[in-house]
Amino acid sequence: MIDPTKGGELMKAGARAVPVTLSTRIRLARNLREFPFPGWAETSQRRAVMSACREAAESLKTFKDPISFEVDDLSELQKLVLVERHVISREMLQIEEAAGAVLSPDQSVSIMINEEDHLRMQVLRKGFDFKSVWKTAKKMDLEMEKALEYAFSSDYGFLTACPTNLGTGMRASVMMHLPGLSMEKHMDKVIRGVNELGIAVRGLFGEGTDASGNIFQISNQQTLGEGEEEILERLGRTLDEVKTQEINARESILENSSQMLFDKIGRSYGLLGNAYKITSSEAMDCLSFIRLAVDCGFLPEKCRAPIDAGFIECQPGHVQFQAGHNVDPDERDAMRAEFFRKKLSKFPSLDFDKT
Amino acid sequence: MIDPTKGGELMKAGARAVPVTLSTRIRLARNLREFPFPGWAETSQRRAVMSACREAAESLKTFKDPISFEVDDLSELQKLVLVERHVISREMLQIEEAAGAVLSPDQSVSIMINEEDHLRMQVLRKGFDFKSVWKTAKKMDLEMEKALEYAFSSDYGFLTACPTNLGTGMRASVMMHLPGLSMEKHMDKVIRGVNELGIAVRGLFGEGTDASGNIFQISNQQTLGEGEEEILERLGRTLDEVKTQEINARESILENSSQMLFDKIGRSYGLLGNAYKITSSEAMDCLSFIRLAVDCGFLPEKCRAPIDAGFIECQPGHVQFQAGHNVDPDERDAMRAEFFRKKLSKFPSLDFDKT
Repeated sequence: MIDPTKGGELMKAGARAVPVTLSTRIRLARNLREFPFPGWAETSQRRAVMSACREAAESLKTFKDPISFEVDDLSELQKLVLVERHVISREMLQIEEAAGAVLSPDQSVSIMINEEDHLRMQVLRKGFDFKSVWKTAKKMDLEMEKALEYAFSSDYGFLTACPTNLGTGMRASVMMHLPGLSMEKHMDKVIRGVNELGIAVRGLFGEGTDASGNIFQISNQQTLGEGEEEILERLGRTLDEVKTQEINARESILENSSQMLFDKIGRSYGLLGNAYKITSSEAMDCLSFIRLAVDCGFLPEKCRAPIDAGFIECQPGHVQFQAGHNVDPDERDAMRAEFFRKKLSKFPSLDFDKT
Repeated sequence: MIDPTKGGELMKAGARAVPVTLSTRIRLARNLREFPFPGWAETSQRRAVMSACREAAESLKTFKDPISFEVDDLSELQKLVLVERHVISREMLQIEEAAGAVLSPDQSVSIMINEEDHLRMQVLRKGFDFKSVWKTAKKMDLEMEKALEYAFSSDYGFLTACPTNLGTGMRASVMMHLPGLSMEKHMDKVIRGVNELGIAVRGLFGEGTDASGNIFQISNQQTLGEGEEEILERLGRTLDEVKTQEINARESILENSSQMLFDKIGRSYGLLGNAYKITSSEAMDCLSFIRLAVDCGFLPEKCRAPIDAGFIECQPGHVQFQAGHNVDPDERDAMRAEFFRKKLSKFPSLDFDKT
């Protein structure tokens, strides 16, 4: 059975934690030729898909010691924790039968079975690294293809339940931390510009979620008519451009409104270190400015990993999982505040003279 | 010339700083029999009043080394500083000619000349102490009466420019810090109840000002038909009652919503210690909860005097006086924030286990 206290790619320390880009993710949608898409399949067919895919996934050489489960095997809190870590989708929780996943032990690779498609294979990594993420995804895809017969059309490419995934079946996305553009109120312009290039911008938890903590998920919309490398290269160029704009926004703020910036950072640091009740949304907004403080050199680099983990740990599921039981929202706010008071008590003071 | 950096009864350290009651004040309105009230007097008459009253005040034995000035002698910042310390009235600043004051060196006694009445004699002291304040006021009044001929009617008592001061000419007021009643949303009820007893409740700077920092000024409305001691005794009983209600409110909060209280105190402490821009109103609200932390034992008693001084030091005039020149509001917010960051950096951490 899965132990959500272990793993969590986004909660790792390490050199891959960098300014602006929090994480890179590629997921491939694949379906088996012999079976209807999960939404149209009988339970027996879904069961057959499950067992074939699970066997293939568990035999992968891409990672050892796979963790394998059906959604029904999980407690509500385990489900929530995995969703908050972006390991499984929120949609998957709605599926009542014969849906599950196979994960690598560090949860950086996850293969969802019988979600919208028979297979949703995801590689998630901290930092900005399409190259290595795509390498892993491609390797896994080729291995799976040896064991399973994919639904593939020579006209369209990989067939998927929803036409928006047709072709490569690939969705590549990067989680970007854009406090500079948000403070300068340039995000609307950036989103419009990026949309025109066929690239989508969403909140932390995908479509329809808000951008708490100034975190935006930027991904390709097109899956058809271009090869994977082409899509990644085009998306990468756009992300580089957004990153440059973010850096420029930060430099402009540091030059023209440093007091405002210090104030936002100082207040965030003061609040998160001293509050006795805090919502996840306020905690994320505080973490955002504290992460920015690390980027700017006002806090040492060693603070970055605990902050990045904080974005996940502040979510309701993680707070409750930590407590070991369901907790009502009010008490959650108190537990979350206690968690972050302890975390910040280990941080040094802000040093705005270091730039 | 007056040096506003010296003196400031409300900014003193000492044993008279206590929970709930910040300061006690008594002022007596008096007029000279031979002259029309200031609002009706010719300039030459006002000049004559000024010189007679000033001479009498400067010769008082109530205090030595008086500070004496006319309003016109002061810079705009000096005026503002004295108003913020409750040493002279805001109304006095509007008077163009032949108005001034004589102060004791510690500014705890001030005699305004040619404000609404010929004489407004005030004694201001930290803590709750009608007895000693009234003793000083009475002594000063008797001394002044020997040198000047007061306008007095055997029917009405002391005659004053405004009938609301007729009789004793006395206004006694206490500045109360009522965060408990404010948090419990009981202040409206308290104000209504107190009003019915002929007692007024106002904000920090008197009529029409708001109660930033949960500070309320409570004073007698009636000046006629009762003797001074009677008024003070009745007012004192009411204030004791308000104080009891405040203490009860705090106990109820500590028992039923301690987390909310810790949160408000923690956030105030975190903000005031880390902000880089803060308005006087937000600073006062933070100070209010930090003072409450001292009352509750979460911070040591030695923090009380710097907090109490902070209520005055955070005012716009004091911030600018500290800077030595006029400063626009934005820059003021930055200077104020710096001032309080430094002040709070000397405070120990909050200790909510000590109750």
